[in-house]
Amino acid sequence: MDFELDRGIAVAASGPGEYAATLDRGWVVGGGLNGGYLLAVIGNAIRAELTDSGQPDPVSVSAYYLTPTTPGPAVVRVRRVREGGRRSTVAASLVQQEGGAEVERITVLAVYGSLAGQSPEVDRQIPPPDLPPVEDCVEARFAPDEVRRVAPLLERFGTRLDPAYVGWAVGEPSGSGIIQGWFKLADDRPLDPIALLLVVDALPPVTFDLGLPGWAPTIELTAHVRADPAPGWAIVRHATRNISGGQFEEDCEVWDSRGRLVAQSRQLALLPRVSGKSGQPGDQV
Amino acid sequence: MDFELDRGIAVAASGPGEYAATLDRGWVVGGGLNGGYLLAVIGNAIRAELTDSGQPDPVSVSAYYLTPTTPGPAVVRVRRVREGGRRSTVAASLVQQEGGAEVERITVLAVYGSLAGQSPEVDRQIPPPDLPPVEDCVEARFAPDEVRRVAPLLERFGTRLDPAYVGWAVGEPSGSGIIQGWFKLADDRPLDPIALLLVVDALPPVTFDLGLPGWAPTIELTAHVRADPAPGWAIVRHATRNISGGQFEEDCEVWDSRGRLVAQSRQLALLPRVSGKSGQPGDQV
Repeated sequence: MDFELDRGIAVAASGPGEYAATLDRGWVVGGGLNGGYLLAVIGNAIRAELTDSGQPDPVSVSAYYLTPTTPGPAVVRVRRVREGGRRSTVAASLVQQEGGAEVERITVLAVYGSLAGQSPEVDRQIPPPDLPPVEDCVEARFAPDEVRRVAPLLERFGTRLDPAYVGWAVGEPSGSGIIQGWFKLADDRPLDPIALLLVVDALPPVTFDLGLPGWAPTIELTAHVRADPAPGWAIVRHATRNISGGQFEEDCEVWDSRGRLVAQSRQLALLPRVSGKSGQPGDQV
Repeated sequence: MDFELDRGIAVAASGPGEYAATLDRGWVVGGGLNGGYLLAVIGNAIRAELTDSGQPDPVSVSAYYLTPTTPGPAVVRVRRVREGGRRSTVAASLVQQEGGAEVERITVLAVYGSLAGQSPEVDRQIPPPDLPPVEDCVEARFAPDEVRRVAPLLERFGTRLDPAYVGWAVGEPSGSGIIQGWFKLADDRPLDPIALLLVVDALPPVTFDLGLPGWAPTIELTAHVRADPAPGWAIVRHATRNISGGQFEEDCEVWDSRGRLVAQSRQLALLPRVSGKSGQPGDQV
């Protein structure tokens, strides 16, 4: 099968620990490429580097966003920091050429392992939220034309948002700081551990639900992949509980169609500027 | 004033971006040095590197623990990844000599800035838990002799644990997966942003409260420092909500004496092995 995400995150070995990628314009949102998409590109390069070790799956990935990424060629460099029998730690960087020089876009630390070899036991987990049926949720792809023009990303997703937290789309944000819904990729590509790196940053920022439209630049995002997702609709929930000093944290949980928590992330981000000037990804971070 | 923590985390420039430290045996817990102490040592080296830039405070620090650290000499190497007007991103590593070779112990990515220059506004925050008065909480320093022998660390802290979650000390864990209490340093050194890197890993692991004694090796810990703490007793809460596949997440929040959330962290850790063989920090990670 030929899926959009696989084309978008494809990497080709171009040297020792070096992988060439072409960042696809289809994953643009606002002034730059979606941070979750970029994380999946980097995650896929690390997977290529570690597959021979039998450790193809992300366990923990911490990304620091440095400068705005643009569609086109990019290189991911992967350095093995520590190779263990069950897990390996790597450092990775996504770089692009800009004005004749190489500029680092995102720098990452990650632990990879094998989810297949992990105990299937679940001792405790946060239960997924009660959502209305998929057909009663709001399809994000049906956003107004002006939104879709600046966010071709929306066409890649089959997201159905919980109507309780979509009032922001018509100027009536709930003020809860929550965005949640059903998630699948638009072309029904099955989710896997690499796709989960995309999913944790696939919904609109929770600041929309607080009446703060605009770009919320990510300072840091750490994702933990806890299990291989089962096929079917996932449930994704984003929430913020701490907003201060111009910053907020956004916690994300992802459950698969069995209701199993398969990924969890937290990011620290800057509140959108309310000056009317819309920010660019990476601005001031 | 001459405080234990300042002696323990002191660094001396030993080359460009290189800082020598002496890891103090007083911060040992079980088979190794406390992860929060090590984070404060690294954080202090980064602070030394960035003080001239007017960005002395940790904003976000992500640490990947590689191999067990031992008391004695260590070197912290700091590489500036991106220098911005308001925040800078660095990569840092703590290394030690072992058998004639240099071994990396912990690798870190961090964003530093200036908390003094940050807006004091708090729009929303998790409220601190209701704790009994300090004098009704349990002083961890009064642990049994055999615990104190393997954990000299306890003597550094003035922690007073909420009695609702200390049953594990007498074989009756609450099973809640929570540990919380009042926190100060034993010698009353005031808390500051660097000390908060210690505080987020200063309480016993939440697995104690689940009836799982033993070492819980950290895979990854990310701390966000949200504000400069006010003087006085802090409140610290650790909780886990997701335990699966032999792993658990431990979320930590720290509030200062004004009740302001000043730091937040999440770590992904391995459940203690129940074989009876006690693990070493860094084992199998």
